[in-house]
Formats: sequence, C-alpha cells, structure tokens
Amino acid sequence: MRDITLKQIAETLGISITTVSKALKNYPDVSPKTRKAVLDLAQSLSYTPNSFAVNLRTKESRTIGLIIPEVVHHFFSNVINGIIDEAEKNGYLVIILQSNESLELEKKQVELLMNKRVDGIIMSLSNESNDDEHIKEILRKEVPFVMFDKISKLIPCSKVIINDQKAAFNAVDHLIQKGCRKIAHIRGPVNPQNAIDRFLGYKKALEKNNIPFDSKLVYTCKNVTFEEGLEFAKQIATDHPDVDGIFVITDLVAVGVLAHFNEVGIKVPEQVKVIGFSNWFMSQVITPKLSTVDQPSFEMGVQSFKLLLEEISTKKELLPFQPRTIELETDIIERESTSKN
Amino acid sequence: MRDITLKQIAETLGISITTVSKALKNYPDVSPKTRKAVLDLAQSLSYTPNSFAVNLRTKESRTIGLIIPEVVHHFFSNVINGIIDEAEKNGYLVIILQSNESLELEKKQVELLMNKRVDGIIMSLSNESNDDEHIKEILRKEVPFVMFDKISKLIPCSKVIINDQKAAFNAVDHLIQKGCRKIAHIRGPVNPQNAIDRFLGYKKALEKNNIPFDSKLVYTCKNVTFEEGLEFAKQIATDHPDVDGIFVITDLVAVGVLAHFNEVGIKVPEQVKVIGFSNWFMSQVITPKLSTVDQPSFEMGVQSFKLLLEEISTKKELLPFQPRTIELETDIIERESTSKN
Repeated sequence: MRDITLKQIAETLGISITTVSKALKNYPDVSPKTRKAVLDLAQSLSYTPNSFAVNLRTKESRTIGLIIPEVVHHFFSNVINGIIDEAEKNGYLVIILQSNESLELEKKQVELLMNKRVDGIIMSLSNESNDDEHIKEILRKEVPFVMFDKISKLIPCSKVIINDQKAAFNAVDHLIQKGCRKIAHIRGPVNPQNAIDRFLGYKKALEKNNIPFDSKLVYTCKNVTFEEGLEFAKQIATDHPDVDGIFVITDLVAVGVLAHFNEVGIKVPEQVKVIGFSNWFMSQVITPKLSTVDQPSFEMGVQSFKLLLEEISTKKELLPFQPRTIELETDIIERESTSKN
Repeated sequence: MRDITLKQIAETLGISITTVSKALKNYPDVSPKTRKAVLDLAQSLSYTPNSFAVNLRTKESRTIGLIIPEVVHHFFSNVINGIIDEAEKNGYLVIILQSNESLELEKKQVELLMNKRVDGIIMSLSNESNDDEHIKEILRKEVPFVMFDKISKLIPCSKVIINDQKAAFNAVDHLIQKGCRKIAHIRGPVNPQNAIDRFLGYKKALEKNNIPFDSKLVYTCKNVTFEEGLEFAKQIATDHPDVDGIFVITDLVAVGVLAHFNEVGIKVPEQVKVIGFSNWFMSQVITPKLSTVDQPSFEMGVQSFKLLLEEISTKKELLPFQPRTIELETDIIERESTSKN
C-alpha cells in the first residue's frame, strides 16, 4: 500500500505541511487558489488521511468489538444486523468475534479487543462461561461494556435483556390454556442465565396451574442443536408416551422435535403440542408451523449499541456513568403446533 | 479508559523508558530483577501496549474488512464463519459491514475501510452493483483485495467462486433425468454475475436435452425473498399449469414455492418437482425436504481469507502479486422434492 503523506504534497507544491493540513481541513486562512491546488493534488494522488495517526491523537478508534457465541444462528445474526446498522449510523465500525461457546476463546478475544483499544465491547456470554475474571478486567480498565441476552447478573454493566422467566411462563401457560396437563421441558445448558430463567418460568407456570413438577420431564441440552431435538423427542415418546405438551429452549431444537414426530407419525398438535422460543425464520415454513416466543433480536442489537454509545460519550466527557438495564418485550406467536384439537 | 504508558512505569521504577520497553519485550540485556519489577508493575497497573502506536510504526493493523450484502442469510453467515475462523488462526481481526444490497452503501463502506487502513478487504458485491469505480479505487491504492461469490469478472483481483453455470446445468439436468419436460426457472436479479451464470446453465441444460427454451417460463426475482417464491409459484400454477419442474435461484425462494404448493394442494414431487440452490439448513427440515445444490460456504470463507493473506504477505515483502481464482466444487443434494414419482 503506497502512503501519500502531507509531506509529499507540501514538497510537490513547495508550501508548508501546516498549509497543506489547513487546506485539507478547509481552514479560512488558506487562499482559495492554494486550497484548490492542494485538494486537486491530494485527489490525483488518492490521498487518504492516516487513520492510525488520527487515532493516536484523539485516542478514539471509532471501532467497537462484538463477541457472540455463534454467527450462523438466526437470533445472533439478527442482533449483529441491529448492532452494525446502528453503529454505521453513528460512524462506528464493528469487529465481530465468535467464541464458539468456548470460555477459553472468549477470554482470548476480550484480551485481543482490549489490546486493539476498541472504544467499547458488546458481548453475549458463551454457554461455557462460569468464570468472569476476564469480564471484570474490562470493567477495571473502564472500557465501555454492554452485555445482551446471555448475561451475568453479577457484573455491574449495562444490559439489554428480555424477561426470560416471564416469557417462558407465558409459553408454558399457553400450552396449559390449550389443554396440556403433562408438559415436558427441553432446557438449555446448566450455566447460561437465560436457560436457568426459562426453566424457572416453566416451573412457575406449572405451579400456578396446580400441575406437579416432575424433574424426570426435564431434558437438558448440551449443545442446543437440531440433533438434540430429534434425540429428546425420541426419549420423551419412549419414556413418557402420555406427555401432551413440550416447551423447548429454542426453535432450532423444537424443529428437531417436530422432525422426529413427523417421522414416526406422532401427530402435532393432536397428540402433543410443541412451543419453541426465539421465532426463527424456519418456524413459519415447516410443517406443522411452530408456535414460539418472539424475541426482538434486531431491536436488541440497536439498543445494545445505543447503551454502549451512551457510555462512550459520558466517559469521554469524564463524567460518571451509571449502567442501565433495558428489558425488551416478548410475544407468544401462536401457530399450528399448539392449535386446539 | 485510563491509559498506562511506558513513561509512567519508567518514572515509578526510576528507570529509562527504553529499559521498560526492552523488559516488556524480553530483551536479554535487561537484568532478571529489573524485568520482573517491570512485569509486576505492568500487570498490577493493567498495562496493555498501545496498539495505535504500534500500528503507526509497523503500518499494519492486523485487521481486515469484510463487505457482504446481508448478515442474516444462511450462505453469508457461513462464509463469515469461515473467514473469522481462519483470520483468528492467523491473528487477524475482521470488521464486518453489510451493504444491504445497496451500491451507495457499498461505496461508502469501501471508503471507510480504506480510511481505516485495514490490511485488506474481502467482498461480495451487492445486487445493485453495476458500477465498479469504488472497486478500481481499492486496486489503485494497492490494498489487498479478494472477491467471493458475487464477483465482477472485469476486476483483476483474487476470487473464490463456484462454477455457477455448471452447478445450474447439473441442477436442471437432474430435473430432466427425473422426468421433467417443461421446466420453469425463478432467476435472480439482472445484475449479479451468479444470477446470469445460473440462468445460462439452465438454458444449456435444456438445449443439451433438446427441450426448447421458452422465455415466458423465466421469472425474475427483485429481492430474492420467501415472499417472491410464494408469488411466482402462484403465477406459474396459473399461467403454466403444465410446468412439471422448477429450478429456483436459491433455497429461501424455493421454500416459498413449496409453501404455496402445500397451501393450495399441488403435490411436490408428484405434480411438479422443485430444486433450489445453496443448501440452507431449513431445506432439510421442511416438508417435502428440498433438493438443492450444495455450496461449500464455510470453505469459501476460509479460502477467501487465505488468498487475502497471501496477497498481504507478498506485498509486505514488496514482491509482485499475481491474483488467483479458486473454484470450489458443488454437489447436487437429492431429497424428496425431486424424487421419482
């Protein structure tokens, strides 16, 4: 890459570097003739200001880092969409890293982004994260920081979340309203707060409706995959053929459940009703169409960036920043998989 | 963000900045005792090297830019996955921008990345791109540059592609082998090279099998959406009820076609066979399961980054770089939507 410097322009035109710099910035004390000569030459030489030098002066990179568990994931790709959309509107670039649900990678990535001196970090925790030293390090260095979706309740930073417990309560309550009395739950892994909260919402809805909780009806995903959906559906059909409703941690796994039931001829919703979570695109095109909980993923991205920018701006003014938590609303989307018999 | 500098460490310990710097870099001419004192203090102060200053010296940002039409898209999110995976292995970070299929945004983003002095750019063109001045500017500035999937044949840069014409030929030939004689094509927009090539592959397969080409059987997507699939399926069923095969530009649109046929009771594959392109995840979970062309999207990302790194390394040594094109293999995935009656 050839670098055209202010010095070269100055030497070519026989004027001072200061004059070149002022001309490029449209300062009024440069004559129109000189300004034109500088701009013309800069253009013909394809001059662009050296952003590293600019960064060094202003200590701003106008770049933020985003760490998410997975890019190829309907929910996260929608959040990314919201973040880069809002970042772009505000003149920020976004470096995206994926932790692949590994705590080790996540730690390394936090370090990378801090060494890179990004202006702030947005993050959703990996399923493995049960140690938050690397997160505390972000706060110790006073790097603006926002968590969304998979958060740690113990970290005092801004957060964008949904009320997972309430959303799960509504999903299970919906199954009960449709007539289900023996409801299984395919839950997420042990660590993530949102998997815990959805499980608690499931329990609460049973309790409120006087249905006894039975831990044998709870199946725990390790990797939250389509294949786990297939496998748990098989186990449920074998071990508890009288289950009449299933609340599944996320649509991808629920689609696996439906695929198994389709294959073995178990009728949804007649024999068993199924509700997922997250409203993935495919849920509306499969047979039967899957009922689910709609999560405002794009909006979650937008709000996460806005909160981060709020912190960046406040800290730039050297003012104290008070972290905030934004809770977004969810809705039950009723489709064929829970319709009344 | 507090910045701990070498100077502060030097002053605190009463040694020179050079000694601090050497200690941090493990130079042998610093005594073990001094080195330990520097490292301990640096750690307790949470010191991280100022990457802007490092960048200014080495003129390397170890960051690349990626411009793609859409993040929320099965194919592109898989490519992103491949790129950031390979980048990470090589110590590079990836800034991701989405053009939203807009030429204006794409131009602005190229400028942004060049001002940012990224070490290289990887890009897939937006559907609107019919003007390549901004791309030529990348080459004029000798910024390492790789295009993948939606490329411009006129730009002399490295490319990672599939043979769209051959892949489309194989897909249509597959329909003919399964007994189709009147085959419609739902094609992509007018500009992108891959939409043109897939259309040419469709024509060639008809020709080879002595089936006359009929331009009335070609439907052109504007936005390549599920909704366009619904709409064109309706038009085909109304205007050409004797069509017995459809080759669709991409799975998302093909899933729309299947959804319409399911709704109105047109039987796939009995009455009409459908084949898509790209092997989206949902294609294997819908009813009927969709036959498609498998594109190695993750591998496309990996190869794109490798080619870019090849160019970055070559140019760093000030050696001439010869662009290369890598063509990846595709496969026909046969599922229910094209099985024999």
